[in-house]
Amino acid sequence: MTDKYPSALLEKAVSEFSKLPGIGRKSALRLVLYMLRREDEEVDAFGRAITTLKHEVKYCRVCHNISDTEVCPICSDVRRDDTTICVVENIQDVMAVEKTQQYNGLYHVLGGIISPMDGIGPNDIAVESLVERVKSGKIKEVILALSSTMEGDTTNFYISRKLAGFDVAVSVIARGISVGDELEYTDEVTLGRSIINRTPFKQ
Amino acid sequence: MTDKYPSALLEKAVSEFSKLPGIGRKSALRLVLYMLRREDEEVDAFGRAITTLKHEVKYCRVCHNISDTEVCPICSDVRRDDTTICVVENIQDVMAVEKTQQYNGLYHVLGGIISPMDGIGPNDIAVESLVERVKSGKIKEVILALSSTMEGDTTNFYISRKLAGFDVAVSVIARGISVGDELEYTDEVTLGRSIINRTPFKQ
Repeated sequence: MTDKYPSALLEKAVSEFSKLPGIGRKSALRLVLYMLRREDEEVDAFGRAITTLKHEVKYCRVCHNISDTEVCPICSDVRRDDTTICVVENIQDVMAVEKTQQYNGLYHVLGGIISPMDGIGPNDIAVESLVERVKSGKIKEVILALSSTMEGDTTNFYISRKLAGFDVAVSVIARGISVGDELEYTDEVTLGRSIINRTPFKQ
Repeated sequence: MTDKYPSALLEKAVSEFSKLPGIGRKSALRLVLYMLRREDEEVDAFGRAITTLKHEVKYCRVCHNISDTEVCPICSDVRRDDTTICVVENIQDVMAVEKTQQYNGLYHVLGGIISPMDGIGPNDIAVESLVERVKSGKIKEVILALSSTMEGDTTNFYISRKLAGFDVAVSVIARGISVGDELEYTDEVTLGRSIINRTPFKQ
């Protein structure tokens, strides 16, 4: 049975909210009624933040990361190593790698990974512009940091082939057991990988 | 460690989203990035739906339910029994009762229940206007349909005292085991209530 809303404006707001991923009509109603209890200015600020972002957002013309400027702060930071590119699927992944504080090179945001099931082919992701960056000659290493899934593997394979003719090292991030994992509960594929990719023990 | 966002506009939109109840910064980022993938018009429609609702929303001057008109569709519906008022805490509760299709009277939305812990006293909820409605003389029954909590009980008690001087029946919704409940798993207070409030068996 569909809910009957006492107001068309309420109905409209709820249906807009429930279009968001992971938000059903019940949560949407809760969010909208929360909005109604807030001050006018707060609600306006909320609406404005979303529409302003949408209209004024830019993407770095070098790495395609989201940015307020033509070239993003990472690409224009002279203290960063501009001979290394870390290839990631999306903006969240840039943030995830940055958070580790273990990487000081540049990025390349593909905007997706090859997934025939979802109709995403090689031409739907930003591989050509990556090849162009490598072609410029300055890049020494490309690190593939994609998800450890079939789609990620496919994309890794495609990119590595595209870069095969250039004088650039192509590496993938290590796969193995997570820090804190207990062997007993690790799946066998991951454990197998971590044995094959074992590294010298450092004291 | 706080996340570092590549864009101030993104940061602003994420922080606005994460003010919503039950939405953390990670979900907020996911929602905002989803917005970025949608069309301009869709995002504008979203922003507009929220701000329009906030600016143009009205509350029925009779029952305080949310409404697009001065008097809500329920209060102005001549087919409804205007001698019975069902008292509820909020708008969601009106929708919940309506959904049962078991009630054909009017409503009165308190806008809260008495909760000293949350600083909500009798004067913060719409009891005076309920008394006024009863005073008008037309009302034969007031049904208290509040949550079965200490706050609900307190509010029931307060309202029933306020209405004590008037020629009106005051009832509360039945408390007992839920439809589909197994006795074995029902808490003893609820089960006790359902025995005390037993009703004649109808064949």
